[in-house]
Amino acid sequence: MTLRFGVVGTGAIGREHIDRITNKLSGGKIVAVTDVNQESAKQTVEIYQLDAVVYPDDKALIADENVDVVLVTSWGPAHEATVVAAVEAGKYVFCEKPLATTAEGCMRIVEAEMKQGKKLVQVGFMRRYDSGYVQLKQVIDNNEIGAPLMIRAAHRNPIVGENYTTDMAVTDTLIHEIDALHWLVNDDYKSVQVVFPRKTKYSHDKLQDPQLFTIETNSGIVMSVEVFVNCKYGYDIQCEVIGEEGIVKLPEFSSVVMRKDEKLSTGILNDWKYRFMDAYNVEIQDFIDSITKKGEPEGPTSWDGYIAAVTSDACVKAQQTGEKEAITLQERPAFYNEKELQTV
Amino acid sequence: MTLRFGVVGTGAIGREHIDRITNKLSGGKIVAVTDVNQESAKQTVEIYQLDAVVYPDDKALIADENVDVVLVTSWGPAHEATVVAAVEAGKYVFCEKPLATTAEGCMRIVEAEMKQGKKLVQVGFMRRYDSGYVQLKQVIDNNEIGAPLMIRAAHRNPIVGENYTTDMAVTDTLIHEIDALHWLVNDDYKSVQVVFPRKTKYSHDKLQDPQLFTIETNSGIVMSVEVFVNCKYGYDIQCEVIGEEGIVKLPEFSSVVMRKDEKLSTGILNDWKYRFMDAYNVEIQDFIDSITKKGEPEGPTSWDGYIAAVTSDACVKAQQTGEKEAITLQERPAFYNEKELQTV
Amino acid sequence: MTLRFGVVGTGAIGREHIDRITNKLSGGKIVAVTDVNQESAKQTVEIYQLDAVVYPDDKALIADENVDVVLVTSWGPAHEATVVAAVEAGKYVFCEKPLATTAEGCMRIVEAEMKQGKKLVQVGFMRRYDSGYVQLKQVIDNNEIGAPLMIRAAHRNPIVGENYTTDMAVTDTLIHEIDALHWLVNDDYKSVQVVFPRKTKYSHDKLQDPQLFTIETNSGIVMSVEVFVNCKYGYDIQCEVIGEEGIVKLPEFSSVVMRKDEKLSTGILNDWKYRFMDAYNVEIQDFIDSITKKGEPEGPTSWDGYIAAVTSDACVKAQQTGEKEAITLQERPAFYNEKELQTV
Amino acid sequence: MTLRFGVVGTGAIGREHIDRITNKLSGGKIVAVTDVNQESAKQTVEIYQLDAVVYPDDKALIADENVDVVLVTSWGPAHEATVVAAVEAGKYVFCEKPLATTAEGCMRIVEAEMKQGKKLVQVGFMRRYDSGYVQLKQVIDNNEIGAPLMIRAAHRNPIVGENYTTDMAVTDTLIHEIDALHWLVNDDYKSVQVVFPRKTKYSHDKLQDPQLFTIETNSGIVMSVEVFVNCKYGYDIQCEVIGEEGIVKLPEFSSVVMRKDEKLSTGILNDWKYRFMDAYNVEIQDFIDSITKKGEPEGPTSWDGYIAAVTSDACVKAQQTGEKEAITLQERPAFYNEKELQTV
Repeated sequence: MTLRFGVVGTGAIGREHIDRITNKLSGGKIVAVTDVNQESAKQTVEIYQLDAVVYPDDKALIADENVDVVLVTSWGPAHEATVVAAVEAGKYVFCEKPLATTAEGCMRIVEAEMKQGKKLVQVGFMRRYDSGYVQLKQVIDNNEIGAPLMIRAAHRNPIVGENYTTDMAVTDTLIHEIDALHWLVNDDYKSVQVVFPRKTKYSHDKLQDPQLFTIETNSGIVMSVEVFVNCKYGYDIQCEVIGEEGIVKLPEFSSVVMRKDEKLSTGILNDWKYRFMDAYNVEIQDFIDSITKKGEPEGPTSWDGYIAAVTSDACVKAQQTGEKEAITLQERPAFYNEKELQTV
Repeated sequence: MTLRFGVVGTGAIGREHIDRITNKLSGGKIVAVTDVNQESAKQTVEIYQLDAVVYPDDKALIADENVDVVLVTSWGPAHEATVVAAVEAGKYVFCEKPLATTAEGCMRIVEAEMKQGKKLVQVGFMRRYDSGYVQLKQVIDNNEIGAPLMIRAAHRNPIVGENYTTDMAVTDTLIHEIDALHWLVNDDYKSVQVVFPRKTKYSHDKLQDPQLFTIETNSGIVMSVEVFVNCKYGYDIQCEVIGEEGIVKLPEFSSVVMRKDEKLSTGILNDWKYRFMDAYNVEIQDFIDSITKKGEPEGPTSWDGYIAAVTSDACVKAQQTGEKEAITLQERPAFYNEKELQTV
Repeated sequence: MTLRFGVVGTGAIGREHIDRITNKLSGGKIVAVTDVNQESAKQTVEIYQLDAVVYPDDKALIADENVDVVLVTSWGPAHEATVVAAVEAGKYVFCEKPLATTAEGCMRIVEAEMKQGKKLVQVGFMRRYDSGYVQLKQVIDNNEIGAPLMIRAAHRNPIVGENYTTDMAVTDTLIHEIDALHWLVNDDYKSVQVVFPRKTKYSHDKLQDPQLFTIETNSGIVMSVEVFVNCKYGYDIQCEVIGEEGIVKLPEFSSVVMRKDEKLSTGILNDWKYRFMDAYNVEIQDFIDSITKKGEPEGPTSWDGYIAAVTSDACVKAQQTGEKEAITLQERPAFYNEKELQTV
Repeated sequence: MTLRFGVVGTGAIGREHIDRITNKLSGGKIVAVTDVNQESAKQTVEIYQLDAVVYPDDKALIADENVDVVLVTSWGPAHEATVVAAVEAGKYVFCEKPLATTAEGCMRIVEAEMKQGKKLVQVGFMRRYDSGYVQLKQVIDNNEIGAPLMIRAAHRNPIVGENYTTDMAVTDTLIHEIDALHWLVNDDYKSVQVVFPRKTKYSHDKLQDPQLFTIETNSGIVMSVEVFVNCKYGYDIQCEVIGEEGIVKLPEFSSVVMRKDEKLSTGILNDWKYRFMDAYNVEIQDFIDSITKKGEPEGPTSWDGYIAAVTSDACVKAQQTGEKEAITLQERPAFYNEKELQTV
C-alpha cells in the first residue's frame, strides 16, 4: 500500500518533504499539491517530476479522493484552517509547527480530531526521531539514571537576521525544546521564568540574546534552557538530564577527529539543516509506516501541539514581565493518553 | 522509474536487502527471487508480501525481462557464475562480497564486464558509504592532512565461534579494511606481513587471535591493521590516517554520554549489525540512484573486487609464511580509472 | 630564606598543610603549633617529627619572634580573632575559609590589614591554583571567547551526611564557586535567586538537594550554578563560560581511557580530596614564593574573603525567601585593586 | 635529614634539576657543582644563589664528604666514568639517560653497584612518574584488562633540527618507550623489526621519518611503536595497551575544552618540556624520599639502563638491516629483581 500525499504549501520545507517522500523514503507518493502561489506549486511538480494534480486551494486538494494524507507546510497562520478542514474530511494530517498560532486554535483541532474518533494528526516535531534524543528517552524510561531532577539544555545558532526578535527566541527556537523536554520526562509544565544575561554585541536592538529560561514541571523537575541565536561558533544543541542515580547527555554531532595545528578537534555544524537531516527522514518514514501498519500516526499529537502553544505563550509573557509565569493546561483527554512511542 | 531487482539467495543478508528495498528506500522493488533452497525463496515472498516471481535458479531469473538488476546474496562460491551470467545478459549486478572466491574468477567478471562496454557491477563493500569513512575520505582528498604516510586501524569483534579459523581473519574480517583503505588513500597495495601476538585465552586451537597486519602501498604508505575477533569488550572499528600535516580518525560510534557509578562513559556496540546499518541503506539507495540517473553504478567495482581477492590471497599466504609477501596486481584497465566517487 | 610557619589548629586540614610544607614543598618550615586540644598539637609535632614549639594558645604563638607566618586552620568561628591578632602583630597569615563567619568580621580584618599598610593575608581558596581554572582564566583574559555572557557550573558530591543542611550548600559547597567565578570574569556580584528542584530520594528532611542558583553580576553576566551533594555518581566540578565568540569549559579530571564491557569510559573521582590535591600544593608554594620574593602574598585577599561572606549571606537569604536577593558590597578600597594574579 | 647533591654537568637539564631541588621540592639541596666548562658551573651557582662548592672535575666533587648524591647531567659519553666512580665511592647517583652509551658500559656500572651490595643508582626515565603511565600500570597490575597482548604507541614531535638523524629516532626518542613499555607489562624484549613508511616532506636527507617499530616480548606481547619527529601538529605521546578483557589508553594532555569557529577542541602541546614537567618533579622528590626513608632509590635501576642500552642497539641495527633483530639480554641478577615500584 502506498500512502498518497497532498501537499499544502510548496515553499522550502514543503519541497524538502516532497523530495524526501519521492526520492528517499518508501511507501509514500505525492499526488496533489497546492500553494497560494500557484506558480510555485506548478514549478514544484516540474522540478520533482511529480505525477500530481495542482489544486487552486487547500479545500479542493482535501476534497480529492486520491489524497490520503494532507501535508501542511504552508505559512503558520494558515495551518489551523487547513488542518481542521482535513480532519473533518477524515484525512490524515502531517502539520509542520506550529499546529496553530494560538492555544485556542490548537484546541479546535483537538476537538475536531476527537470528534473523528481516531488520531489523524501528527505535528512536525522531529527531535523525537533524532537518534540522540531517542537514546536519552530510552535511558530515562529504563530508569538508568533514576528519577529526573533537572535538565540543562542549550539551543544555539551561529547567527540570525535583523528580523528575528526577542519573542522569536520562543516561537521559532525554544519551541523545539518545549516539545522535546516534556516528552523526555513524561511530565507537564507548571511555570517559566526568563533571565536576560548581558547582550552579545552581535545582536541588535529588537533582540535580547542570549536568554535563559527556567521551566518547572508538575513533579518539580527544573529545566534550565539557554537560547543563544548569535553564538557565532556554530549550530549546537545540548541537552543533559540529571537524575537521582546519574546523568545522561546528548552526544555531540558525530564528526571525524583531527589532530592539527596544536588542536585535537571535532567539527561543529554551522547550519541547522544538517543536524536533524536523519531525524526528518525517520520522522516521515515512521509517519508513513504507522498509518500503513497501525492505522494511525504515533508521533507528536494535536495535544502536543496544544501544549507547545500554551507553553510558548507563557514563555513570551515571561519575557515581558520578568516574573515567574504559570503554564496552565486544560486536563488531558483520555484520548491522548500516552502510549509508548516506538521510533526505532 | 523504478529499478526492478531479482534476488539470488534469500538467506539473512538477502532478506535484509529485500526489506530495505521494499520498506525503507525509494526507487527499487523486488520482482523475482530464487534460492537453492526453493522453500526459503517462497517464504521470503510471503514474509515480505512481495509481488515477485520465484524462479528455480539464477539462470531463469536472469532471463526474466522484468529484472533490471540481479542482487547476488548467495553462498560465496556461487557468486562468480551468477555474476558472469548476469553481466553477459547485460543486467546490472549488486554482489555481496566476495565478488568471486579467486582472483582469476574476479578477472573473468572484469573481462565480461569490459566486453559489455559499461559498468554494470557493484560489490557490497558498504564502508565507503559510512558517514565516518566518507568524512575521512573528504579530509584526505581535500588535502587537510597533507600526504598520507601511515594508517593505523583495528577491526574488533567481541567473540567468534569455533568454526572461525585463522584465515577467516582475512577473508571474513580484514576484507573490509582491504577494500576501504586503498580507496581512502587512492593507492594500490604492494606487500603484506603478519605478526601473531600472544593469543588471547578466549580463542581456540585453530584461531590465532589477535593478528597484526603491516601492509605497504606503492607510494610507501604503511598500514598497521589489527584484527582481534575475541576482544570481549565490543564491536569496534578504528581507523586513523597519519598525514604530513595532521591526523584524522574515525569518530566513535555516536552514543549518549553517561555519568554514573564513578564513570564517564559512552556505549560501545556489541554487535556489528548496528555499526553499518545506515551505511547499508545509503549504499543501496546510491546504487539505485546512480543507475537511475546516470546509467551506471558508482560504488566499488569489479576491479575493486579483484583487488580484494588478490590482496586477500597474499594476506593468507603471509599468515602461513610469516614473511613479507608481495601483492601483485595486473595493470588497471583504463575502463576502471577512478572518477571521484560521490556518496553524499 | 626559609619562611617560618606557626600553625593554629592541628586538625585534618592543619596536618595536611604541615605535611605539605615539611615534606613536599620548598622554602617553608613549621616552627610552632597550637590547638585548643593541646594533645593534638603535641601529637602533630611527634607524627611529623617537627622541630617546633607547642604553644598554649594563638596569642603566644603569634608573639613568637621566630614565626613569620600564621597558618590558620582552626574552627571557623575562631578564625577572625586569630587573624586580627596576627595582622596587628605584622605577621603574614594564610587562613583557610571562611576568613570570618560574618561580613563584619571580614571587614574588621580588612581594616586591620589596611592599617598595616601592606597585604599580609591570603585566604585558602585553592581553585584559583587548579590548572583547569588557571587555563579558563587565561582564555578569558586573552579575550579568546570575547566578553563573558553566562557561566554554567555544577558542584557535585556523591553523598553527604545527616548533619549537612540546606544552608551548608552555600557555606560549605557553593562558597568555592562564589570565590572562583567573580575572579574568573573580573566582575562583582549583584543579585542571587535560588530554585529548588524536586528533591533526590537520597537526601533527608533538613536538606534541599539539588539546588540551582542564578547569580547576576554588575555587568550582567548570568551564572547558573547547580549544587548537588548527593548526586551518587561521583565528585564532579563543572564550569563553562559562554562568551560572545565561543565557549570554554573546564577539562574533565584526567584519567586513563578504558574500553571494557561495552563501554568507553574514563574515571570520575569519588572523593573531593583528590580533585584539588595539586592545587593545594601550588597554592601554598605560591604563597611561600610570593612572600619570599615579593614581600606579599598574591592570592585571594581579605577583600575576597569579605566578598565571599557577603555573597554567602545573600545566597542563604535567597534560599529562605525564594526571591531575588541583592548582593551589596561596600566600595572596594584602592588597596585591594586587582593586579594580575600569577599562579604559573 | 636533607640530601646533599653534587651536580656534574650544569647545562640546561642540570640547571632545571638544580632549580627543582632548590626551589620546588623538599628534602634536598645542592652543595657542589662541576662542569667541563667551569664558567658554566660558576654562573649556575650565582644564578640560583647556591651555597655550593665549584669543583674542577667530577672526581673532586665525588670525593667531597658533604656530597651524598651525585647528579649526572653531563654529556652522554661522560656518564659511565662518573657513575662508576661515584658508585665505587659509595655515593648515590641520579643519572640522566643514557646510563652509558654502550651495553658493556652499563654492565660495568651494574657490576660496580652489585659490588657495593646495595642499590645506589637511579636512571632518569621520568615517564614512570607521569600520572597517566602510573594509572596505566595500575590498571594492568590490577588485572583490569586481563593479560596484555599488544601495545600501540606513538611518540610525536612537531619538528626536529637538521642534526637529528635516523638513529636518533631510537637513541633520543624511542628510548623513553623502550624503558616505559617493558616496565608497564613486566616483561623483557625479544626482538625488533622496523618499517620505514613514506617519508614526510618536512624531513631531510639523513632522517627517515616517520618510523614504525614492531617489538616482541618474551611472552609474545607485540608492541607497535610509531616515532614521528616532524609531525607538525604538536608534541603527542600515545600509548594503548590491548588486553584479553579490554583496552586502556593514556589520557590526552589535560586542557580546557573550547567551542569556537565551528570546532570543539582541546589543546595539544607544542613542546615536550611541558608534557612531563610534573613527572620530573615527582621523579626527583621520590628519589629523595626513597633514599631518605628507605636507604635506596626505588626508580629505574642500572639494570633498566642496561636493558635500554641493549634494546637501543638492536633497534638501530634493525633500522639498518630491515630484518627482525634479536634483543638478547644477559640473565637478570637476583639483585635487580622487581619489587613493586611505589610512585604515588
